Amino acid sequence: MIDQELLHDCYVTNSSKIVLLVVDGLGGLPHPDTGKSELETANLPNLDSMARESACGMTTPVLPGVAPGSGPGHLALFGYDPLKYIIGRGALEALGIDVELRPGDVAARGNFCTVDSEGNLIDRRAGRIPTEFSTPLCHRLDTIEIPGVQVDVFPVQDYRFVLRLRGEGLSEAITETDPQITGVPAMPVRALEQSAEKTATLVNEFVTKATGLLSEEERGNMVLLRGWAQLPSLPPMGDVYRLNPGAIAAYPMYRGLATVANMRIIPTGHTFSDEVDTLQQEFDNHDFFFIHYKPADAAGEDGDFDAKVKTLEDLDLLIPRIRELNPDVFMVAGDHSTPAIMAAHSWHPVPFMLHSNLTRGEGVPGFSERQCNLGSIGSIPATNVMLLAMSHSGKLTKYGP
Amino acid sequence: MIDQELLHDCYVTNSSKIVLLVVDGLGGLPHPDTGKSELETANLPNLDSMARESACGMTTPVLPGVAPGSGPGHLALFGYDPLKYIIGRGALEALGIDVELRPGDVAARGNFCTVDSEGNLIDRRAGRIPTEFSTPLCHRLDTIEIPGVQVDVFPVQDYRFVLRLRGEGLSEAITETDPQITGVPAMPVRALEQSAEKTATLVNEFVTKATGLLSEEERGNMVLLRGWAQLPSLPPMGDVYRLNPGAIAAYPMYRGLATVANMRIIPTGHTFSDEVDTLQQEFDNHDFFFIHYKPADAAGEDGDFDAKVKTLEDLDLLIPRIRELNPDVFMVAGDHSTPAIMAAHSWHPVPFMLHSNLTRGEGVPGFSERQCNLGSIGSIPATNVMLLAMSHSGKLTKYGP
Repeated sequence: MIDQELLHDCYVTNSSKIVLLVVDGLGGLPHPDTGKSELETANLPNLDSMARESACGMTTPVLPGVAPGSGPGHLALFGYDPLKYIIGRGALEALGIDVELRPGDVAARGNFCTVDSEGNLIDRRAGRIPTEFSTPLCHRLDTIEIPGVQVDVFPVQDYRFVLRLRGEGLSEAITETDPQITGVPAMPVRALEQSAEKTATLVNEFVTKATGLLSEEERGNMVLLRGWAQLPSLPPMGDVYRLNPGAIAAYPMYRGLATVANMRIIPTGHTFSDEVDTLQQEFDNHDFFFIHYKPADAAGEDGDFDAKVKTLEDLDLLIPRIRELNPDVFMVAGDHSTPAIMAAHSWHPVPFMLHSNLTRGEGVPGFSERQCNLGSIGSIPATNVMLLAMSHSGKLTKYGP
Repeated sequence: MIDQELLHDCYVTNSSKIVLLVVDGLGGLPHPDTGKSELETANLPNLDSMARESACGMTTPVLPGVAPGSGPGHLALFGYDPLKYIIGRGALEALGIDVELRPGDVAARGNFCTVDSEGNLIDRRAGRIPTEFSTPLCHRLDTIEIPGVQVDVFPVQDYRFVLRLRGEGLSEAITETDPQITGVPAMPVRALEQSAEKTATLVNEFVTKATGLLSEEERGNMVLLRGWAQLPSLPPMGDVYRLNPGAIAAYPMYRGLATVANMRIIPTGHTFSDEVDTLQQEFDNHDFFFIHYKPADAAGEDGDFDAKVKTLEDLDLLIPRIRELNPDVFMVAGDHSTPAIMAAHSWHPVPFMLHSNLTRGEGVPGFSERQCNLGSIGSIPATNVMLLAMSHSGKLTKYGP
């Protein structure tokens, strides 16, 4: 959080409403044949007309040149310094399948793997066994009991699962068991600091018991564990900004990220249209809404330029339904860019626009990377987006006499 | 100060001259009827032609989305991190009426108020008694003597005054006496930390004596005290940049802010034209000048769009007199935006231009928010303005081998 304590006295609670729409992977790059990005190619009458009435700019999620994962990308938009608050891999994997994590819980990414009779690794992914084979194995591992700790195993997909440990005095400061090569045995867990000795012992006991339970399997006869992580301890977003924040996201991982910021998770359906319905129904119950749009990132990651264009056009059709609610501040932002020509998250600054009563006529001709780059907000760290939202809604008063 | 120690060896003293013109509340927002801001509406031939020869950009005083008071807005332009160096309310009030503050002095904003025979507050502002009634009361309070501390009371306006304590071991870490409601007594001062016990005791003694001296008054028969503040301890601007800085400001508060940065205060008259006369007369005596233009902010705070346009046109007429002096670097900056349509300080980035021999032809067509946003300097923190000034005047040499 940026200088939170100094600004704390400047935040006031009022009845105005803020909507933060995060379009996952929003930013793109020009198609080599046309020289136009996904946003420039798409037909976006509603986003374009909103841009003309908005303050526009570009956001940098972490630092110029740094492509963020979903965790840092979202935390930054919520106002948390993504270089200070880290969500580890195991924790993010758990959040991504709706596994509840409480402060103190330790989560790891698990793999089923195949070892030979000597215990040396033959296949670190157990021949990529499909979900229907691995799910019963997860249920078997879930029966493991270790005194002093609650052990739960959740299937993810194919050969992957999540291990969650719950109990007193657990630590994420332990080593991984995956040697990253075959022909050698899995490594035992070691504590990286003294306070993690107990956790290391518990985990090694889990691995021993798991090996016993899986020994008859042909492929998934052993497990590898990595990405040990506890939830970071974030100041609740509601306390920091004196808001009552609600989150609407069809995908578990984004609900999980909102949970980390201590937003209320509002139950919703599986599509963005469902999310907008939920926003309408719940509009009186919160003064801040985070609403998440996933398909743009998925198409970008697939490297499918035309599909990403289509997802943006689909989104555009639903923008009027949000604007009808007349939020005092309506922001369209992205957690990062996912240019289809890269088929990956990228470091490119992300288009951003903020609509309020104080942005009339400030805007640019349309909503795209090139246009937003000329907007009045300029190029800002994504962690400052909430400050703008708070000011434009009258919730952030003058700093200093 | 940004990275001051690292850059210290790069500063050199030479004979070149820098003028920093701070146009208070410079930035604005478009008028809803015309879509043009105050700067875009005004006829500014001199500022526009200067912009065409200048490097232009936008400055952010504190952080995007944060509207600053005059204190943080000016400190940032002088190169001080406004989130590190805080000027408290009482200190700013004192500076605003030309009350000298030395390091260690404690200042408070005082109100005359009215209490009933039980001592409960009836009116927290003593019926807003006018200055001609309150000034004699201030002189009466000024006679109070408390062993171990020098007590001075200065009239401000109407029911308001400044209390200044001068002595050894004083602290600003004490509570306010204003309960913010009527029907209850004023609160005694408490120390917020042990080292402030002495100050708390002294102030309570002051309040007791003040109550005695005022008891016969019908309206101002008691005082309330708040905004306790000492001056922050700033590295002198002259030392930091190896400059000999002079300040020219018709309004006391801005002289006060320059004092905090340890500039020499150059006596001047009451108008900006007087200030420009002073600049001409003193031009040989300093290598850095801060010169302040107040009317734009005053008109903006009044919400008077046309009046703000007029103040900018008035300023424009005097720009040639500054340019005739041929300063090596001439900067036009603002401490914050004060859009007339908001009638308040705002968080919007502030237009900025810098003229030097190294900026010819870099410029934009005119001086406005939209034009400066496209300038070569881009969008920068206001704390970086001095670095640009130093470089453009040959006073900041290469960093690193």
